Amino acid sequence: MSMEPITSLQNPRIKDLVRLRNRRDRDQSKTFLIEGFRELSRAADAGLDFTDVYYSPDLYLGENEPALVERLISLGARAAELGDDAFRKVAYRDRPEGVLAVANQFDTSLDRLTLGDRPLLLVVESIEKPGNLGTMLRTADAAGVSAVIVCDQTTDPFNPNTVRASIGSLFSLPLAITATRQAIALMSELGVKTVATSPDSDLAHWQVSYDCAVAIVIGSEQQGLSSAWLSGSTETVRIPMSGTADSLNAAVAAGVMLFEAVRQRAH
Amino acid sequence: MSMEPITSLQNPRIKDLVRLRNRRDRDQSKTFLIEGFRELSRAADAGLDFTDVYYSPDLYLGENEPALVERLISLGARAAELGDDAFRKVAYRDRPEGVLAVANQFDTSLDRLTLGDRPLLLVVESIEKPGNLGTMLRTADAAGVSAVIVCDQTTDPFNPNTVRASIGSLFSLPLAITATRQAIALMSELGVKTVATSPDSDLAHWQVSYDCAVAIVIGSEQQGLSSAWLSGSTETVRIPMSGTADSLNAAVAAGVMLFEAVRQRAH
Repeated sequence: MSMEPITSLQNPRIKDLVRLRNRRDRDQSKTFLIEGFRELSRAADAGLDFTDVYYSPDLYLGENEPALVERLISLGARAAELGDDAFRKVAYRDRPEGVLAVANQFDTSLDRLTLGDRPLLLVVESIEKPGNLGTMLRTADAAGVSAVIVCDQTTDPFNPNTVRASIGSLFSLPLAITATRQAIALMSELGVKTVATSPDSDLAHWQVSYDCAVAIVIGSEQQGLSSAWLSGSTETVRIPMSGTADSLNAAVAAGVMLFEAVRQRAH
Repeated sequence: MSMEPITSLQNPRIKDLVRLRNRRDRDQSKTFLIEGFRELSRAADAGLDFTDVYYSPDLYLGENEPALVERLISLGARAAELGDDAFRKVAYRDRPEGVLAVANQFDTSLDRLTLGDRPLLLVVESIEKPGNLGTMLRTADAAGVSAVIVCDQTTDPFNPNTVRASIGSLFSLPLAITATRQAIALMSELGVKTVATSPDSDLAHWQVSYDCAVAIVIGSEQQGLSSAWLSGSTETVRIPMSGTADSLNAAVAAGVMLFEAVRQRAH
């Protein structure tokens, strides 16, 4: 940590960091960006495998950042100080907090999940907006789900906006990425009831039981669920709506469904 | 509509439109921006008072945009064509649809609201993120609320990101902006039960009745509710959470509460 800070915006490491905002570069390097004190603390708590940490003391908001940087170094990250302009260039937040790290992507294969007894699962299909996916992870974590299964991914969970909106839930929550047909097969094999949301259903979402091994299945913002899920689910339900709004934000819909399950399972 | 398109990015009207992204300029002019085919159609349906419409045919996504522009002109808007670069400069969306209008802000005074019998209300206090406020309006509309009351506003409902996230619900939903103490006084005067959310409550949100004249009260993302609301509400409840996530996105929390009320009131 005694080297000169990186101040040139043309420095190759700065350019590499900016490139990690692109899916292709994340997929190639199998790494991703984590920014912010709270997020990095939770990532460290969750045992993530860090490769690098970048810090810019002029931007620190509190007094605990140096200890966090030391902690990431002790976990194996190489450290480099950035000038504040260089940090602002690599930061994707409006108000950068002066700490950013690169971590290796973790294993998201379906066969890695252990679901336990009577699981509550969230299954999402083809979510388009990274922020929505992150908010869904945060919401699923708060609802105490056993795992989230991302089917036919459009946005990847390692997108910086997903990381940010999940506020650390991405790191602690069991997460699998798979194809819709494999997820349907697994739910059937494990005897997990699947409850899919569709505006065409006659059943209100509270009219089915979630007090069992159950997966709540939410489709994409624009298209809703695929016909594979709509025909392959145990039940389809709709969230009853009034007014001129004919739909809910996908993360709000997930929250409404998940907390109806929490309500039914609380006894 | 026979004038030359505006192509200069230095044109004063272009600069005025960009300035309407700022709260100060909206407050001074008492106008705001509405962008997009669906949003403008809903704004026209709701009877908004348009001053200007800007269109850029090269950016149209469908075939119905010319009819929409004609409709806004018939409602009193002056029309001007923009070159596509000029339109992209004034657009705040990633994928502009070639239609944008300026409308006069509508009346949001509290005494204008008529609540009817046994209303369900959403009250929000000091929401910071425009997108969250817009998503809350969309969610409240879908839940069939009688009105939304915005207390001690931090972000204003005429922010372009609020307009966008509300997907038109801003125009159709009765909306009042007021101070917290006035909202508390009005709820008391009208005999409306107020249910405030607080992580410190011992009651789960489903353990109180919403099957009456009731207002659900949601606080800001960072601070939660003020002590005025926490001590001035009929009930405080918490949404029970597990996992490492210790909070929900404010719009998700509003959705969970509102649809518990919808569930209880459906009979």
